Amino acid sequence: MQRLGVRDVRPGLATVIVGDSYPAHAYERRVRRLATRLGCHYVQELLAADVEEADAVAAVGKLAADPRISGILILRPLPPQVSEATLYRVLDPGKDIEAVHPVNSGLLALRRPRFVPSTPAAVFHMLDRYLIESGRDPAQTYAASTLVVIGRSASVGTPAVLLGLERNATVLSCDEHSHRAGLLYDCTRRADILIVAAGVPGLVTGEHVKEGVIAIDVGINAVTDPVDGTLRLVGDLDFVSVAARAEAVSPVPGGVGPITDIWLLANTLRAAWLEGTPSRDGSLDDSVGIDRFGLRAPVPGGEPVSMATP
Amino acid sequence: MQRLGVRDVRPGLATVIVGDSYPAHAYERRVRRLATRLGCHYVQELLAADVEEADAVAAVGKLAADPRISGILILRPLPPQVSEATLYRVLDPGKDIEAVHPVNSGLLALRRPRFVPSTPAAVFHMLDRYLIESGRDPAQTYAASTLVVIGRSASVGTPAVLLGLERNATVLSCDEHSHRAGLLYDCTRRADILIVAAGVPGLVTGEHVKEGVIAIDVGINAVTDPVDGTLRLVGDLDFVSVAARAEAVSPVPGGVGPITDIWLLANTLRAAWLEGTPSRDGSLDDSVGIDRFGLRAPVPGGEPVSMATP
Repeated sequence: MQRLGVRDVRPGLATVIVGDSYPAHAYERRVRRLATRLGCHYVQELLAADVEEADAVAAVGKLAADPRISGILILRPLPPQVSEATLYRVLDPGKDIEAVHPVNSGLLALRRPRFVPSTPAAVFHMLDRYLIESGRDPAQTYAASTLVVIGRSASVGTPAVLLGLERNATVLSCDEHSHRAGLLYDCTRRADILIVAAGVPGLVTGEHVKEGVIAIDVGINAVTDPVDGTLRLVGDLDFVSVAARAEAVSPVPGGVGPITDIWLLANTLRAAWLEGTPSRDGSLDDSVGIDRFGLRAPVPGGEPVSMATP
Repeated sequence: MQRLGVRDVRPGLATVIVGDSYPAHAYERRVRRLATRLGCHYVQELLAADVEEADAVAAVGKLAADPRISGILILRPLPPQVSEATLYRVLDPGKDIEAVHPVNSGLLALRRPRFVPSTPAAVFHMLDRYLIESGRDPAQTYAASTLVVIGRSASVGTPAVLLGLERNATVLSCDEHSHRAGLLYDCTRRADILIVAAGVPGLVTGEHVKEGVIAIDVGINAVTDPVDGTLRLVGDLDFVSVAARAEAVSPVPGGVGPITDIWLLANTLRAAWLEGTPSRDGSLDDSVGIDRFGLRAPVPGGEPVSMATP
């Protein structure tokens, strides 16, 4: 990768996988391909499913100390003997590109993000770009909108709620408890903007959304075709029926996924760049926030992927 | 204060005020009175309104290094030349009883709170206790409820949203943008549980709530009586009209305020206690979370204040 501006910025990405989760390995292959294509230094740390926690901690600690590595991605799931919280705490916060270390999660909650986790960042990048390209002012549009987020994971749903708050939307957060209480579809029908990250194929159909909704599908579910028995990937939205009522809807596969990959690399580059940016007190300068409406993937080849508008 | 159990736990609280804000000084007096009554070591650091930022940082740094101080409260507002973010970062996270340091804010967002900020903690303490005392299971009640939070400050609204997510409620967050967009009262009318922290006297009246709502008023506003010209404190709710429709509503003055004070002291005690609790990696053991439904004020004299039920 070439020098970025006048400073010598050399991004390096490390992924950590424990065990043989199929989705984790599939994601790792995609990230590796993209990193290689962009000329980014890349390391994969593969640990056995029965690794001792202390050894996993040592492996992450080694990457945290390696000056060639600017960003570290720990893929889930982790086996029961390895605590997520313990492993995340070993991450150097300056290399924590998915913002899972408490200090980065806190900076996001305090609306001074150092890193925005790649999936929710991709969601809002898509929304921001779509609003601009359709001739609207994102700031005004969010402030006048009801934004509904389904799902509350630490990596997608919860940061999406925080990013919605940051954009001054009226934000409604639901999960499976809302569904059990019979509240879910009443919520989805109120959405001007709907973000679905539940991991349930076809959870939301056309009858559950309001005419003119802008819907982003974050679900990636493998389902078996009842006719020919093949596996295919579908989202949480029933695309056809939602598209018939929506102003815009993002597809699965495609949609959020490819932008997420680019964002991960963008965060790796950002980490490498921040490394040389000490603030007054010697810590990282986390005032270098990502522009609210200027979210961009500053990576060569990081072409924005347009949202499919039906 | 006596020894707590077998360990020598000596809580010490420091408050920092910059300038002569009337509400800050009024709050400081209340906290000082309570600390003194409980035999807690207490220090007030009063800085001039035109203090240089470096001197404010040095003053907080000195408290952070003082072994007799276990908890530090920085009162707002701060003058423009002193950055909140800079000052908060000087706080030792182990003494940051209002969870304003990024690492503590992040632990709250990640649902592993070390400290819960005193005002939202008091709100949920009240709600938890009220639900238990009225014969309901809080876990089931929250999971089946729409919880509406008005206001998004870093110290009240945003952590209240996070605490609502932690309790599996369907959470709706509004602020002045929702009001401007004409969405506010549509939101308040959906609330099974309503938390109002907007700082606008009488913002919500009986016609804006649903029959049977449980409403917590966090607002404290000084208004002039139009008849006799005296100043009095009122909340954000129009108490009389809301009480006529609500199942329960908290009053102002009283209500959340006195529980908040106790919570601040409880967090100071908690900080002193955690100080002697190193975790495996030498950091504070933040797995010592506050029990989800067992929120208690473990301070002598910390009698729970009942919510006024009309």
